[in-house]
Amino acid sequence: MESLAPPVQVVGWSATGTLRVLDQRRLPAAVEHLELHTVEAIAEAIRSLAVRGAPAIGVAAAIGLAVIAAGPPETWRAAQHGRSLAEIESAAAALRATRPTAVNLAWALDRMLGVARAYASQGPADRAAALRAEAEAIRAEDAAMCAAIGRHGAALLPDGTRVLTHCNAGALATAGIGTALAPVYAAHAAGRRVAVFADETRPLLQGARLTAWELQRAGIPVTVCTDSMAASLMGSGAVDLVLVGADRIAANGDVANKIGTYGLAVLARHHGLPFVVAAPWSTIDPQAATGDAIPIEMRDAQEVRTIGATTVVADGIAVHNPAFDVTPHTLVSRIVTDRGMFTPPYVFAPDAQLLPPPA
Amino acid sequence: MESLAPPVQVVGWSATGTLRVLDQRRLPAAVEHLELHTVEAIAEAIRSLAVRGAPAIGVAAAIGLAVIAAGPPETWRAAQHGRSLAEIESAAAALRATRPTAVNLAWALDRMLGVARAYASQGPADRAAALRAEAEAIRAEDAAMCAAIGRHGAALLPDGTRVLTHCNAGALATAGIGTALAPVYAAHAAGRRVAVFADETRPLLQGARLTAWELQRAGIPVTVCTDSMAASLMGSGAVDLVLVGADRIAANGDVANKIGTYGLAVLARHHGLPFVVAAPWSTIDPQAATGDAIPIEMRDAQEVRTIGATTVVADGIAVHNPAFDVTPHTLVSRIVTDRGMFTPPYVFAPDAQLLPPPA
Repeated sequence: MESLAPPVQVVGWSATGTLRVLDQRRLPAAVEHLELHTVEAIAEAIRSLAVRGAPAIGVAAAIGLAVIAAGPPETWRAAQHGRSLAEIESAAAALRATRPTAVNLAWALDRMLGVARAYASQGPADRAAALRAEAEAIRAEDAAMCAAIGRHGAALLPDGTRVLTHCNAGALATAGIGTALAPVYAAHAAGRRVAVFADETRPLLQGARLTAWELQRAGIPVTVCTDSMAASLMGSGAVDLVLVGADRIAANGDVANKIGTYGLAVLARHHGLPFVVAAPWSTIDPQAATGDAIPIEMRDAQEVRTIGATTVVADGIAVHNPAFDVTPHTLVSRIVTDRGMFTPPYVFAPDAQLLPPPA
Repeated sequence: MESLAPPVQVVGWSATGTLRVLDQRRLPAAVEHLELHTVEAIAEAIRSLAVRGAPAIGVAAAIGLAVIAAGPPETWRAAQHGRSLAEIESAAAALRATRPTAVNLAWALDRMLGVARAYASQGPADRAAALRAEAEAIRAEDAAMCAAIGRHGAALLPDGTRVLTHCNAGALATAGIGTALAPVYAAHAAGRRVAVFADETRPLLQGARLTAWELQRAGIPVTVCTDSMAASLMGSGAVDLVLVGADRIAANGDVANKIGTYGLAVLARHHGLPFVVAAPWSTIDPQAATGDAIPIEMRDAQEVRTIGATTVVADGIAVHNPAFDVTPHTLVSRIVTDRGMFTPPYVFAPDAQLLPPPA
């Protein structure tokens, strides 16, 4: 499974050593990459969703902070290069402020700051080198995390499974084969037939633009539907399982994910279908006792108001645009993480008894 | 209530006597009217959703058939003008084929054909005059029907009610104040505060483009949300009642309406909210014993694939695009018609005992 290559390279290092991200705002019309090295540009890439998906944001922030820590690129060949700890902390704060809900962002930055502080008394060049190694470790661990989710979750997808998914928790959201889609890629790689319905996922259409694009690229049958079609698909027996990612999971198993997820969970319950969340262990936030403790980012009305050059809501009309909703744990059938698959009641203590990985 | 003027004139006669419809494909960017007199142009206006909404389609088809029956406009001043019964029947068949699900279209055309056949032995000019009078009667009855739905349904909307609606079953869908929105207009006219959440209603965005536009024009507070936000709105207690229209209602109360309606009904049930359908009596199809007998129109994938000039689904990726879904009667709390308000179990026999109209 470790050899399962992602269908696309989303976040990594450019040839010159800067942060390189696939600009997902342009998909599916264009496949273009950004090469970034300033705090402002990296923060803007995260804020504007050029790079998106909780794990990919964490990796991008880690690599981004390592690049910033090394100082301006034109100084990198000098023995004396790199920024002060205070500058690194300031950059981390700016990156942290870009997306309040995704816990991986804060997690990756905290881990990087831990290294930076451990190297507080070293020279800036040594500190930058240590941060570069740490960011690369975070990237590699992310790919391994995806592979592990795929291994654990593939057991839920026998031959012929028809999956409904929402938003993009695929390769495009990670540095590997994705989180929610990792079991799909793993089952496909194991020779099983798996077909996917991809909710288009308004307002930003990540399902239509991203999930469908990456699954097609991988040769997995995919059909796009609008978010409003999920209920009739379930009612007609066209769906076997709902499989989504998570931006944050509370200690009791409540799941914050892309707006629309909660509705799918209610619909799945009504139709007697399993509702499965697949997400990295790092998505679990022990500080959030329940979903009520998870802040929900409200995004700009313009995302709903216009699609490309087309205005769909006239000026002066109010628009509601929360980025996430919270699905109560009572509606969640399984939570698949890289550390194993959990069943209700959800207990995520590090020493929790994990189900054995599927054979 | 009869004096409640619709916020916009959707379908009627032009100054020269042709069919005049508001081109709803252009809203909200432009308010433009089409003036039509050929079978092809009228059929295309219905097929392409320039005129849409089951009642407005019925009125447009009736006026359209009357205009066609009168022959080419340049002949109208001649004593001898008008088309043969066979030509009228052929035109009616072409109009009938444009939208298979909306029962009002067939109903209005059957009524017009009944008049045409009653005038079979009269001259074409007399027949055309009778058809013109019949079409005008259908238009006036439609406005009165809307007003009656408003009267019956307003009882469900006390002061302060927050309504969630889907698609557009408003003034823009009728020749009056709408069907699902008629109770909203009636309650507003009675001085009650009513606020509306309008689902944007992908793929064609009738909620964002049309419902929000006409409610704002009428001074009624409206907030647009994506279809995927309905569940979280209900979960947060922001909605008191779901109020939708219907394209066809089966004899047992199963409701065919815009894709996404069924999901809202499931969500309303989960959250303990009333799910109310408001539609003309003519929407009830006694020939359809249950929703299984209602044909579901599958529309072109392009409607999902592109929004304005923006491609959201890459070429070669499959798209699912049913125009309607069927909500089982077990999820429907009330059906409001112009003949009164019905409660489960639904019995629509013409002599059914109707609830008294609200005082």
